Amino acid sequence: MAGVRKPNRKDLLVMRLAPGSAVAGVFTQNRFCAAPVVICKKNLSTRKEIRALVVNTGNANAGTGDDGIRRALKVCRTLADLLDCLPGQVLPFSTGVIMEPLPVERITPGLPVALSNGSSWLEAAEAIMTTDTVPKAFSRKVRLSTGEAVVTGIAKGAGMIRPDMATMLGFVATNAGVSRTGLRHLVEIAAARSFNCISVDGDTSTNDAFVLIATGQGPAAASKKDLQALEDAVTEVSEQLAQAIVRDGEGATKFVTVKIEKGRSVEECRRVGYAIAHSPLVKTAFFASDPNLGRILAAIGYAGIKDLQTSKVDLYIDQVLAAKNGSRNPAYREEEGVAAMKKSEFTVRAVLNRGKADATLWTCDLSFDYVKINAEYRT
Amino acid sequence: MAGVRKPNRKDLLVMRLAPGSAVAGVFTQNRFCAAPVVICKKNLSTRKEIRALVVNTGNANAGTGDDGIRRALKVCRTLADLLDCLPGQVLPFSTGVIMEPLPVERITPGLPVALSNGSSWLEAAEAIMTTDTVPKAFSRKVRLSTGEAVVTGIAKGAGMIRPDMATMLGFVATNAGVSRTGLRHLVEIAAARSFNCISVDGDTSTNDAFVLIATGQGPAAASKKDLQALEDAVTEVSEQLAQAIVRDGEGATKFVTVKIEKGRSVEECRRVGYAIAHSPLVKTAFFASDPNLGRILAAIGYAGIKDLQTSKVDLYIDQVLAAKNGSRNPAYREEEGVAAMKKSEFTVRAVLNRGKADATLWTCDLSFDYVKINAEYRT
Repeated sequence: MAGVRKPNRKDLLVMRLAPGSAVAGVFTQNRFCAAPVVICKKNLSTRKEIRALVVNTGNANAGTGDDGIRRALKVCRTLADLLDCLPGQVLPFSTGVIMEPLPVERITPGLPVALSNGSSWLEAAEAIMTTDTVPKAFSRKVRLSTGEAVVTGIAKGAGMIRPDMATMLGFVATNAGVSRTGLRHLVEIAAARSFNCISVDGDTSTNDAFVLIATGQGPAAASKKDLQALEDAVTEVSEQLAQAIVRDGEGATKFVTVKIEKGRSVEECRRVGYAIAHSPLVKTAFFASDPNLGRILAAIGYAGIKDLQTSKVDLYIDQVLAAKNGSRNPAYREEEGVAAMKKSEFTVRAVLNRGKADATLWTCDLSFDYVKINAEYRT
Repeated sequence: MAGVRKPNRKDLLVMRLAPGSAVAGVFTQNRFCAAPVVICKKNLSTRKEIRALVVNTGNANAGTGDDGIRRALKVCRTLADLLDCLPGQVLPFSTGVIMEPLPVERITPGLPVALSNGSSWLEAAEAIMTTDTVPKAFSRKVRLSTGEAVVTGIAKGAGMIRPDMATMLGFVATNAGVSRTGLRHLVEIAAARSFNCISVDGDTSTNDAFVLIATGQGPAAASKKDLQALEDAVTEVSEQLAQAIVRDGEGATKFVTVKIEKGRSVEECRRVGYAIAHSPLVKTAFFASDPNLGRILAAIGYAGIKDLQTSKVDLYIDQVLAAKNGSRNPAYREEEGVAAMKKSEFTVRAVLNRGKADATLWTCDLSFDYVKINAEYRT
């Protein structure tokens, strides 16, 4: 508890890595990427072994220019001294308010305590929460040819969620042994299938980071089949974390899967899916359990697919065929739509019938509480 | 009052045009464009003289397929019979719920009454309101070489507002005489500078239509200078209407001008402006009068300008320089930001310092009432 923003709140986490660990990460595409993101990318680009990760909440250290870089480096240097390693072997992460100076003077004195804290993943997940209402941690075992390995991950995030490369702080670790190149591949696959498929409010954060760690303390991924098994496990844990972020989306009362099928390309399916997932009108209809399905058609229509033939589009809410050939299914009864949307989880499925590609995204509704949380966030 | 959706509510408007009137229009780019939009485009593409416009609220007749076209044509045919003209000389407009069948059986019997109603522009503006809280009508005079002409317009719209070509029902008329080609040019210029510069929620409607009428009953635009004067007047009236839509945005408590300056192209300035105008985080900060300016930097950062140098970006709230060279202006005091944002109208100005182009958009905040209005719209 460094008191970065509010006193008596868990706001500082240090994760030490076993010697020999490999680390790979993907980071936000926001041009105003935060100072710690700049340093993470730099430190990962050298071939130095990463020894520790340090995360503070309460302050994003973004939109802070050169001074922000200096402050983040000071945190790395202090931690490196404590661990007897080089500052370049530390990866810094920050999350919180943008465009305010990082209170280094409060963070560095908190490092020794953070270092001595217990190493439970759940405690770590708690330490990185901001507007999150629940800690997010998942774990699963995976059988490799060389033995059984474990994949465990934590994440935080509830608002400013529309990862372009990864989400605001996701960390997944395995004790499996994987090469740096293999890990780099893994992190990209897992990000593409998990964090890059979610949206709470369409706002891409300045601090998004998704980091994958392989300590190599357990069995090595020794074959192509092992790598595939590990890829599946890492993807599954990442997907669970990403979905947990949406479930905990600011003010969210509904968890909605958006599936776009039979498009020409994954890219166009994602574009249509995000048009639905970002529409404030669609999201308030989700909140009201109101099958105001015309709003969904409208979003599909403005997604920017110039040659979309609307007369081919079918729309389902779970198993209910609401629109057929681009207009209301004559057999559709509104009670069925209401029943499906009253559930706390349901799927909106649009079938474009123009190709073979598909994409799945996860999003939530837009409620009074989203406005409340974000209108009051700093006060 | 045809009782399209709710009884005893003004929901039907007929506008008769003086013989010899020229008409031009621009319409939504939404692929799910409504049946009346399809018919308007077709009727305007023939060279038949338009004799009347008919507008119903309560039902958008969009996402209704061929049946929707048949129903809209039936309305045109009934009105044409009453006016002794051809159905192709009638332009139909609809606004309201999407994907429900147009209740023609309630609309056609209302047409004689709607026809005999008074011709006040204010009454017309009232007749086309849906979630609007105020009617929107503006008028101004313009001096031409041939005499003084008048430009008057009405519009409706409060939600599903992010016109891609024009907004949900804007009508501007002048008694000046203008050629069809001249009018076509005028409508595009005026739309680009007014309705295409606003956003309430980023949702592009299926029914957007902006129609310009020149009756030719007054003085003719006889010279290039006259056309320019008329262009200025039409643009001004359109801009007033567009801004009135934002001021009346669903749940809006703030009217915010977003100016992006010194970009490489108007296109990129608009993209940055819309990233700010569509960010739910920025909009809730507007609502809270909270100068949480990092959210604005974040939106600029994810607007998709790949080579944006963030260290060159300056950010102002009205006259207050909040961020300088991409990070917090050392001289900035938060009280100044709060004071500016507490006003019901203010300007967010981002200076990119990478070119000579600029763009101005108008938007509003995101409040509890936006959620309330849209969660309860159909109930």
